[in-house]
Amino acid sequence: MREPRVIGVDLGGTKILTGIVTRDGSVEHRRETPTPLESQEAVLAGVGAAVEELLDDSVVALGFGIPSRLDQKTGRVEGSVNIPLQGLDLRSRMAERFNLPVGIENDANAATYAEFVAGAGRGAETMVMLTLGTGCGGGVVIDGKLYRGWAEFGHIVIEYDGLPCQGTCTGRGHLEGYVTGTAATKLAQEAFGPAADAHRLVRLASEGDPTARELLAGMGRRLGAGIGSLVNIFNPELVVIGGGFAAAGDFLLDPAREVMRREALAPDGGRVRIVRAELGTAAGLIGAGLVAFDAASAANGG
Amino acid sequence: MREPRVIGVDLGGTKILTGIVTRDGSVEHRRETPTPLESQEAVLAGVGAAVEELLDDSVVALGFGIPSRLDQKTGRVEGSVNIPLQGLDLRSRMAERFNLPVGIENDANAATYAEFVAGAGRGAETMVMLTLGTGCGGGVVIDGKLYRGWAEFGHIVIEYDGLPCQGTCTGRGHLEGYVTGTAATKLAQEAFGPAADAHRLVRLASEGDPTARELLAGMGRRLGAGIGSLVNIFNPELVVIGGGFAAAGDFLLDPAREVMRREALAPDGGRVRIVRAELGTAAGLIGAGLVAFDAASAANGG
Repeated sequence: MREPRVIGVDLGGTKILTGIVTRDGSVEHRRETPTPLESQEAVLAGVGAAVEELLDDSVVALGFGIPSRLDQKTGRVEGSVNIPLQGLDLRSRMAERFNLPVGIENDANAATYAEFVAGAGRGAETMVMLTLGTGCGGGVVIDGKLYRGWAEFGHIVIEYDGLPCQGTCTGRGHLEGYVTGTAATKLAQEAFGPAADAHRLVRLASEGDPTARELLAGMGRRLGAGIGSLVNIFNPELVVIGGGFAAAGDFLLDPAREVMRREALAPDGGRVRIVRAELGTAAGLIGAGLVAFDAASAANGG
Repeated sequence: MREPRVIGVDLGGTKILTGIVTRDGSVEHRRETPTPLESQEAVLAGVGAAVEELLDDSVVALGFGIPSRLDQKTGRVEGSVNIPLQGLDLRSRMAERFNLPVGIENDANAATYAEFVAGAGRGAETMVMLTLGTGCGGGVVIDGKLYRGWAEFGHIVIEYDGLPCQGTCTGRGHLEGYVTGTAATKLAQEAFGPAADAHRLVRLASEGDPTARELLAGMGRRLGAGIGSLVNIFNPELVVIGGGFAAAGDFLLDPAREVMRREALAPDGGRVRIVRAELGTAAGLIGAGLVAFDAASAANGG
C-alpha cells in the first residue's frame, strides 16, 4: 500500500503554491502559479486547477492555507488580506468538488504548524510564531496542539494611540505598524532616500552602518514588547520568527530578546528562546498539508 | 444517592474563602478565614484546616484557586502574588492529605470559569475575562473550554516603554500599570489629594465631576486597547470585566468599548460585547469548585 499523501495549497496574494505533502512534512512535486484576483470565483477556479494538476489516487485529503480570518466551526472565510475571498465556505466548496476531506487554515497558523512539526519548533511543546513580511502574522501551538483560532498577533497593541495600522485595519499602535518588511522599507527610505528598502537596510546593517543598526534595533525592541505580551499569555518555551523580514536576524532579534526578558513574568522570561524559522517559503505549503492530514484523521473518526 | 459535591477554596492574600459547590455553581456553607502568611507550610496548614471544616462523605473532589502561575502538567506552583507559595506541588500535597482528586487553577482563570458557567458568560462559546482589583488578572474560555495556561492578561504591553509595572514585574507599559483599583487610587490622589482613593473617584464620577469622569475614561480607553489585543487573538463574542474596580461601570467601559471597536479587526469588533461580571466575590470560590469537578471527572477516566 502506498503511503497516504495529501495536497497542500498555500494561497497568497500573488501566487498559489501547491505540492504533495507527506506526514513528516516533506514536499514533492512543488508547483507555482499566479493567483487570479479578478473575483472570488476566479480565485476558486485557480485553486481548483492547481489541485487538479497534482491529484492522483494516493491523495487522501486537501489542505488550504489562506490569508484570511476563518470560522473553523462553519468553514466560513470571514475576511481576507490581498485576495477577494469573503463570506465563502471554502471547505465545503472544495470538499464537494473533489470529494475528499478538506482542511483550511489561516496562512500564518499553517506556517506555525509546519515549523512546529518539521522546522524550528521540533521537540517544543508550546511555541509562538510570528511571520514578518508585508504584514505581520502569527500562530501558536499550545501543549502540542495548533490553536485554530484567530491568533492575529500582528494586531496586538504595543503602543497606545500609536501609529495607524496598515490596510483596512482601523487600529493604532499595532505590532504590524512597527515590525514588518513594509515598516522597514519606510524607515529605510526616511534615512537613506527613496531608493532604499528593507533589504538595503539589512545589508547596510550587516556592513556596519550604525544608523541602519539602530533602526533595526528600534524595531527589534518593539518586537520584544509584542513577544513579551505573548509570553505572558501563552508561556511558550520557544518563539519562532519567520517571513522575509526575519532575514534581519540578530540585528532585530537581540534587542527583541532583551526587551522580551524585561516584559515577561519571572521565572519564564529567561527561559524563552527566540529563533529564526527554518522552512522558508515552504512553511505555508507544508502547514496546509499537515492541516489536510488532520482533516483526513477527523473524517476517519479521529 | 446524594448529589456529588466538591469543596472549592479561593486562596487570597488576606483570606481563604471556602464552600461546598454543586455542579451548577451554587454554593453552600460558605466560610472565611484569614490567610496565614508566615510561611509556605503555614499557608498549607491554613488551607488544610479550612477544607477539613467542610469535609463530609458527599465531597468527591477538592479545587483550589490560587494567586499563582502554575504548570498544569506537573501541578507545580511557579510563582505567586501576595502569598509565600513557590516551587510547591500543591496538587499532590492536597491529594495525599485528603485522598481525593484535586484540581488547582490560577484565581483569575477560576473566576473566568465561574462566570462562564454560572455568571455573565452563560451561553457564550468564547469569552475573555479581566479582573480589575489590586492587580489585573485574566482568563479565557475558548470554544467552551477553559484555557488552563497562564493568560496573564494584566501583563500584556499596551504602551511601549510606558509606566513601570507593579510589584516584582520588571515590565513597562503593562495593562496592570494603568487599569486597576491601585492605579485609580493613584490618579485620584494626584487629582483630589491624599485622602482620595478608587472608591472616591468612582463616587465623584457618578456625582458628575468632570475630572473624575475624564480620569476613568482615560483608564477605560487603555483598557479598550488591551481588550482589542485580546479580541484579535481570541475572537471572543464576550468580554467580562470583574474585580472590585469593575464598580466603575460604564464610566470605564463605554470608553473601553469605543477603543476596542477601533483596535479589533473587522468584522468582529462590532459584535463583541463588554459586560460586567455577575458573581462578585464568589467567582473565585465557584470556579475552584468547577475545577474540582473537572478533576473528579478526570480521575474517573472522563
